[in-house]
Amino acid sequence: MIYELASIKIDPTKSNEFEAAVKSAAPLFKNSKGCIAMNLQKIIENDGEYLLQVTWESLEAHIVDFRNSQNFQDWRALAGPFFIEPPKVVHSDIIGSFF
Amino acid sequence: MIYELASIKIDPTKSNEFEAAVKSAAPLFKNSKGCIAMNLQKIIENDGEYLLQVTWESLEAHIVDFRNSQNFQDWRALAGPFFIEPPKVVHSDIIGSFF
Repeated sequence: MIYELASIKIDPTKSNEFEAAVKSAAPLFKNSKGCIAMNLQKIIENDGEYLLQVTWESLEAHIVDFRNSQNFQDWRALAGPFFIEPPKVVHSDIIGSFF
Repeated sequence: MIYELASIKIDPTKSNEFEAAVKSAAPLFKNSKGCIAMNLQKIIENDGEYLLQVTWESLEAHIVDFRNSQNFQDWRALAGPFFIEPPKVVHSDIIGSFF
């Protein structure tokens, strides 16, 4: 199990519309092979910045299966128009959840 | 409820020792007022980079109560020697957990 960590920047005046777009796109993730969970976080200090944290069964489930799927195309069609720069995406292994 | 998102860089040859130090520091967080959960993530793409994600009841629980506590001093004494630059810390509101 790994996390996808996507740092997203949008025009902060479009926050409500962006958040609605991500919510409407959630089924695209839910219906994708190997996708376990997804949350959207709004960075408090920096207006217009978000972190999309998606839990995948494996790195491959995200970067091979999802990125080559129609669901990815549909996700980008919904959310992409809000991005004011390409999202910065990394992945992480969970070393420990301590309590 | 908010997340603290601390991006941490260490010397990657000291990963095992750093991860052990964070694990040993977990009770300092657990015993702090308003601290709900904590996990440590290792960034897959960038050697020596970690994300410490701490769930707090409020922003104040982290930046006022915790940062002025002995637990914070003790945490920094354990983990600080591994940092090769000051951690980049932001906080986030959870807009939605979609499934």
